[in-house]
Amino acid sequence: MTIEVPDDHPRSESLHTRHRIEDGVDAGLTHKQGLIAEGRGEAFDYLLGERTIPSADRAERAAAAHLLRADHPVLSINGNAAALVPDEIVALADATGAAIEVNLFNRTDERIAAIADHLQDHGATDVKGRTADARIPGLTSERAKVAADGIHAADVVLVPLEDGDRAEALGAMGKTEIVVDLNPLSRSPQVAAVPVVDNLVRAIPNIAAHAHDLADRSDDERERAIDAFDREAALDAAEAAIRSGELD
Amino acid sequence: MTIEVPDDHPRSESLHTRHRIEDGVDAGLTHKQGLIAEGRGEAFDYLLGERTIPSADRAERAAAAHLLRADHPVLSINGNAAALVPDEIVALADATGAAIEVNLFNRTDERIAAIADHLQDHGATDVKGRTADARIPGLTSERAKVAADGIHAADVVLVPLEDGDRAEALGAMGKTEIVVDLNPLSRSPQVAAVPVVDNLVRAIPNIAAHAHDLADRSDDERERAIDAFDREAALDAAEAAIRSGELD
Repeated sequence: MTIEVPDDHPRSESLHTRHRIEDGVDAGLTHKQGLIAEGRGEAFDYLLGERTIPSADRAERAAAAHLLRADHPVLSINGNAAALVPDEIVALADATGAAIEVNLFNRTDERIAAIADHLQDHGATDVKGRTADARIPGLTSERAKVAADGIHAADVVLVPLEDGDRAEALGAMGKTEIVVDLNPLSRSPQVAAVPVVDNLVRAIPNIAAHAHDLADRSDDERERAIDAFDREAALDAAEAAIRSGELD
Repeated sequence: MTIEVPDDHPRSESLHTRHRIEDGVDAGLTHKQGLIAEGRGEAFDYLLGERTIPSADRAERAAAAHLLRADHPVLSINGNAAALVPDEIVALADATGAAIEVNLFNRTDERIAAIADHLQDHGATDVKGRTADARIPGLTSERAKVAADGIHAADVVLVPLEDGDRAEALGAMGKTEIVVDLNPLSRSPQVAAVPVVDNLVRAIPNIAAHAHDLADRSDDERERAIDAFDREAALDAAEAAIRSGELD
């Protein structure tokens, strides 16, 4: 079903996002639980004012610096991310030299393949995750299955819309984790080195923009972007924005 | 897919609800947009503390009194409501003498039939909505299609998870509208005579419980339940609860 949404509709952006993720279900990319997660995100984004708050922008700049500094950065992609921002994911991988790996909570070979194909249709040259030849220790869910030369070997992992168990397990492996999640007090941003409390559709392109900017700067400036980010203050600021944001 | 959720899991109730609504999609009851709406509701419910706040309980008592006092009360049911609380809807209809009518934003004959059949499997004796022989004036969406002897003739309509356009159109027809919606500042509770800011899975059985209690009382007591409910104060209280509620 295609619904025409006028561009001047007050909620045009969130309606476009909603339709992209519904199309993702039809295309076999997005799980039904991904639609429910999208709805939860919509509510928090609505409370945030559907904007990138200043602390989220600082988190996105720190995320870009971490990805640029890393030896083996990986973007861990699920069905929602692939449905919502495939071009932007490919652009972020290009801007930072990060690998792309599909990793799913509700893993099936068909869905892994559909998501990898979709990202390749959008320009990704190498998408990992089809073969899962390594495991994240201490995780029983399907998300434990990773590529030995991908997430398993990564020093920095960016994970949009993460589950808390894997966030903790990746941290326990000593990896620097960047989590994009609209609920500042859910478990994954609470345990991430860099919690990005922002909508994926704004966060991914903004991290890429910061990466382009930081790539031309000195190592010192990249270090300063990392040091300038205070995760506790950012989580507090996001919560305050949600508490005081416009509710209509 | 069936997922076992331990009853002592901290989010066991919301996880059970989530699985019921996913099953509703598989059974042809719930639209994909219904899953996104469920997610939005989950986020607001989480901020509310997943409880019936006192002002919502007063709204539910007033709703019960309105339904009991009405000449032609109707429960307007969509795919989410049918998937989540079919037994409770039938019990509420029995307790108040209300008719049940299926009314959908994303209307197809198949989905109307699937929902009506599902409610009849749960004990409903007469479900309206299969034939839509009347229209709500001023509405262009499929929700305009209603039964002449159902919503069109109703004096009191209870609508879970409403869209704002229809809420206004029903009000313009002079009907008393009871809306169940977890976002106190979305348009439908803003225009409803009785906005119930509560989760449907708690609201419907609690309205039925109040109806059983009020049925044994005097007309005066039923009038007092209606008069004691202050819609503006209830909307303010719900917003305050969301602003100050536990965010983890």
